[in-house]
Amino acid sequence: MASSTTSSALYSRTEDVLAHLPVSGTTKYGKGATIYGPETGSNSIYLVVGGKVAISQVADDGSEVLLEIVRPDELFGETAFLDRPRRSERAMAIEKVKLMTWAISDMEDLVTKRPRLAVALLQFLANRNAVFTKRIESFATEKVERRLARSLLRFSERLGSLEEDGSVRMTPFTHEMLSRYVGTTREVVTEYMNRFRKQGYLNYSRDGIFLHRDALSDWLNKRALAAAEKSN
Amino acid sequence: MASSTTSSALYSRTEDVLAHLPVSGTTKYGKGATIYGPETGSNSIYLVVGGKVAISQVADDGSEVLLEIVRPDELFGETAFLDRPRRSERAMAIEKVKLMTWAISDMEDLVTKRPRLAVALLQFLANRNAVFTKRIESFATEKVERRLARSLLRFSERLGSLEEDGSVRMTPFTHEMLSRYVGTTREVVTEYMNRFRKQGYLNYSRDGIFLHRDALSDWLNKRALAAAEKSN
Repeated sequence: MASSTTSSALYSRTEDVLAHLPVSGTTKYGKGATIYGPETGSNSIYLVVGGKVAISQVADDGSEVLLEIVRPDELFGETAFLDRPRRSERAMAIEKVKLMTWAISDMEDLVTKRPRLAVALLQFLANRNAVFTKRIESFATEKVERRLARSLLRFSERLGSLEEDGSVRMTPFTHEMLSRYVGTTREVVTEYMNRFRKQGYLNYSRDGIFLHRDALSDWLNKRALAAAEKSN
Repeated sequence: MASSTTSSALYSRTEDVLAHLPVSGTTKYGKGATIYGPETGSNSIYLVVGGKVAISQVADDGSEVLLEIVRPDELFGETAFLDRPRRSERAMAIEKVKLMTWAISDMEDLVTKRPRLAVALLQFLANRNAVFTKRIESFATEKVERRLARSLLRFSERLGSLEEDGSVRMTPFTHEMLSRYVGTTREVVTEYMNRFRKQGYLNYSRDGIFLHRDALSDWLNKRALAAAEKSN
């Protein structure tokens, strides 16, 4: 899989954290199981050992916005550092997952004993913060079509596998999940995905979505360049 | 000024950090001065001692998205924790400001010597992330009118002063800044601000914008309630 700045930067952070964390007991969850949600809350930091976890923000009206898909060797649950934990976040196993867990009180204790862990966690949080910032930028300046293209590129980088023909296979990734990341309806995602397919940026098969990353990335960058030239 | 959960939670975090930070030299900036930007980058963590600082994300096309307005006793510059600092952030003094600064290498050193500082910084970053998460939720689920109302409530809470008639005076806050926070044009902000004024949610005078917080907040909550009922 082609690696990129964002993905490798995030990965190196997380490696750092892992090097300083003691082994903890593991818990397994079946596909579709809720790890925590508005009903239960959470007071722990989690490490994904196997599988993938969807982190969502539950809006006032009950709708869910997909914040991130966390993959093996990555952490989640950092809202537990807040002393009034937000009850608006949900973590769900989108396939069978295995997690390691540390109670937030133990984690704070560990941090005071292992100072390099503290620095690693600060870097991890700063990185999460940078990812959210890029997303706010995209929401504030781009329409659905470009937001969707950007999301496909990001998820193919993080969750895809490179095929022989140079395309990146993304699975499992439904239009429903994409719509909850991009902030639109499933119908609109389907419409643009069909358009991208006709333009040759992706293919479908029973095995998933196959994305032609370079072509889609070129399209996104060309349009940004054109916008920058226009604004000068 | 009426305090709220978000505002007081953020404040208590920041107090924590301050209690564990050593005094550092102060630097002054005039109104409109750039503290750091894509041209210069930054390798420091800053504390606002006096005045207010606007943090913006500079998009690919050169346009700027307002991320936060940082007020006295609050920190900024946490992107310096990334080992590849992002050059896409700008910090600008929106009035005369006085800052205390710590090089990121010194800060990492301090963290290893003062473990409670580490925990305080982790809480601060987790809080910043929670604020960004709420904003992503708003972008993904709400149209401009509601995003604008929410932004007015948030900034009046953070930057406003309570008047005798119960309204909150917000100054200095231009439509231009609001548009860069909400993710729309200045013209659209002006249109909705006029609508809010006609509906009695705010007044203008030469001294700034006077917001009737409770009325606007009721309007926002009623509509959320209606949406939740509709979705059930």
